[in-house]
Amino acid sequence: MPEETGAPITIAMLGCGTVGSEVVRLLTEQAADLTARVGRPLVVTGVAVRRPHRHPDVAPELLTTDAEALVDSGPDVVVEVIGGIEPARGLLLRALKSGTSVVTANKALLAEYGPELYAAADASGADLYFEASVAGAIPLLRPLRESLAGDRIARVMGIVNGTTNYVLSAMDATGAGYAETLDEAGRLGYAEADPTADVDGFDAAAKAAILASLAFHTRVRAEDVHREGISGLRAADVAAARTLGRTVKLLAICERVVDGTGTESVSVRVHPAMIPRQHPLASVGGAFNAVFVEAEAAGQLMFYGQGAGGAQTASAVLGDVVAVARNRVAGGRGPRESAYAELPVRPMGQTPTRYHVSLDVADKTGVLSQVATVFAEHEVSIAVVRQEGRSDDASLVLVTHTASDAALRSTVDRLAGLPAVREVVSVMRVEGEET
Amino acid sequence: MPEETGAPITIAMLGCGTVGSEVVRLLTEQAADLTARVGRPLVVTGVAVRRPHRHPDVAPELLTTDAEALVDSGPDVVVEVIGGIEPARGLLLRALKSGTSVVTANKALLAEYGPELYAAADASGADLYFEASVAGAIPLLRPLRESLAGDRIARVMGIVNGTTNYVLSAMDATGAGYAETLDEAGRLGYAEADPTADVDGFDAAAKAAILASLAFHTRVRAEDVHREGISGLRAADVAAARTLGRTVKLLAICERVVDGTGTESVSVRVHPAMIPRQHPLASVGGAFNAVFVEAEAAGQLMFYGQGAGGAQTASAVLGDVVAVARNRVAGGRGPRESAYAELPVRPMGQTPTRYHVSLDVADKTGVLSQVATVFAEHEVSIAVVRQEGRSDDASLVLVTHTASDAALRSTVDRLAGLPAVREVVSVMRVEGEET
Repeated sequence: MPEETGAPITIAMLGCGTVGSEVVRLLTEQAADLTARVGRPLVVTGVAVRRPHRHPDVAPELLTTDAEALVDSGPDVVVEVIGGIEPARGLLLRALKSGTSVVTANKALLAEYGPELYAAADASGADLYFEASVAGAIPLLRPLRESLAGDRIARVMGIVNGTTNYVLSAMDATGAGYAETLDEAGRLGYAEADPTADVDGFDAAAKAAILASLAFHTRVRAEDVHREGISGLRAADVAAARTLGRTVKLLAICERVVDGTGTESVSVRVHPAMIPRQHPLASVGGAFNAVFVEAEAAGQLMFYGQGAGGAQTASAVLGDVVAVARNRVAGGRGPRESAYAELPVRPMGQTPTRYHVSLDVADKTGVLSQVATVFAEHEVSIAVVRQEGRSDDASLVLVTHTASDAALRSTVDRLAGLPAVREVVSVMRVEGEET
Repeated sequence: MPEETGAPITIAMLGCGTVGSEVVRLLTEQAADLTARVGRPLVVTGVAVRRPHRHPDVAPELLTTDAEALVDSGPDVVVEVIGGIEPARGLLLRALKSGTSVVTANKALLAEYGPELYAAADASGADLYFEASVAGAIPLLRPLRESLAGDRIARVMGIVNGTTNYVLSAMDATGAGYAETLDEAGRLGYAEADPTADVDGFDAAAKAAILASLAFHTRVRAEDVHREGISGLRAADVAAARTLGRTVKLLAICERVVDGTGTESVSVRVHPAMIPRQHPLASVGGAFNAVFVEAEAAGQLMFYGQGAGGAQTASAVLGDVVAVARNRVAGGRGPRESAYAELPVRPMGQTPTRYHVSLDVADKTGVLSQVATVFAEHEVSIAVVRQEGRSDDASLVLVTHTASDAALRSTVDRLAGLPAVREVVSVMRVEGEET
């Protein structure tokens, strides 16, 4: 390979936390392999950090606090692992505008300012890669952007947040409540000190926006994603799922929806849902991630692996660095933004879903009839109903067929007001089975 | 996108069977989408077949029996779905030498003549893509070649042949023997009239060679792969696995092995193995495929989906066609052969494996001691032993720790000759658990 003698590919690192330090380590330890794979050496020319004294593992001459000057030094690739919107956004735009390619793990930035970054990359002919922004080590974005580029994706559904999956797996295993399980997760290092981004679904929503954008060739921003977290979840919900042979997962769901008139739109949402215990996503435990993809020709595919962790995420970053470097050597470019389809994002109320409802009811004749009437009035069809108890405390468990989420929501509101209903014990969407 | 007005990307099809006809159908039905994704229209300029009258679905003016002339017409891309070595090899070399890029689903050709095809592609700057050659619709080769290009792959292990997986799943479910299950599979369309390539492991071995070549940056040919099929499998083997909480799968295994002196080599093999029922590959049933990948930084990953079928394989072919077309538009190239590591392929006898052995023994005092002595003499350590029966017919079930396959093989040969051993009921390798 004659190119091995060519000029090195220069890499500037922005940030050097858990992921960044692993990227630097792997670039050093696997230097010979990477050189052979790319055709030229990969060399880190600088690492921008806020507090250089906190990075004793990095050669001191590489460390700088001046990220702008590092970007302006004109490296071939900028690797961004700072996270958050600013200063990451400004730095990456600066890099892309001057023709430097970008590899980033920044889901929030991509989900908010993806089109702006793509446009800057396009103007200068630079590459923009972001495999590590969703599902850590799992090769998922490249398959969506490239492997399935000749297919029509119908659905992407998955577990893309490790913290919430750890909490839900633990609640399912122990029967404990949400608050105490989250505390335990924090003690074990599975939840951040401020877990809001995870438990309220912001993290998963940003990932869902990225997945939907790629899957449907349509711009979807984090704010377009219907988002419900797990903080309202109770032990009763998890117990209800168990009774029905199901388990609760926080799912990111991106669907192509065709309405009665043939008009296409996309539904992009994050919410807890009951899925059957035999569903492949049900057995994805702890901090693992897994994503189902359904495409017209390819059928059902699943991708499984570790969604977080320094080394794992660094693997995805390095795969992108090698891709960018190979493009530099061969003179080509990676895939550009593909947003031609411009499908509208469907409001959650108009999205077809299914509900499970558990009610505490007075054990009197006619309760089921009253409840069924409420469903019928909202044109919601009931798939399964189970009545239990012969004392004062009877319970009624219902699973619906598909209806608009708004109709299901109003049905539940009306049920709560029925005199015979003492308490709505659990309401949850149902996913992962034939409708 | 101004390039949409550019000259079309021209595609010549070689072959038009189950996969090819789906490729033609999808290229037509999704023409508008593909044009938007690539930036230029994709146009089929010819379809070479042996018997044109058998393809009423293809526009007659596209059909030709002269594959060479079609290749010589200078299309941008040749899609080869003929299968087998010749005439596919000659036609693809001809195409690549003249700068035409190639997309092929031909595992046998890649596993045998991959380096020759890569060299021809390199000489002219053409692309060579072959995602559809392994595991049908599952995006697997692109993740190995690109997403994990910055990582060090330790192991690839998977179910890559649908026919044998169907047969083994059925034997496990029904307890029936191999011959009758294969007959049934044939009647249901899951096995070919001549199932040799599947049941004797040739198909899986070609795929293993391709996977190992990509994973370890080393040329591995089909003939380098140790290959054992499922035709020697008996109901007793499947029953023995069940007794041990395991199930039998035909696995393709590609491993990086480091010996005591630190020397690296690769072991590439296809054979039936017992895996624990809770292993993710155990629940992969019917004609599905699934592949585990273990990489140093990324950890464990799994890819799951349909490994065969016209539409499924066509999805993989079309993803490659879009990649090649995008490269034509952007002026770049896909990944080239990466075989720099040149690791030796380890002979099967020197590969570390584990065995399960079930013996019918005379129920006399001292039998276990005799058997244990044979293991000790071969320096094979026993992990689990279970003795059953108090009549004439006693059984002894053993699972070993890791040892060289040759030592395990000789141990079994010696056991068969012990007077106290009436019959070696089942011998099978054990995979998928800590050693």
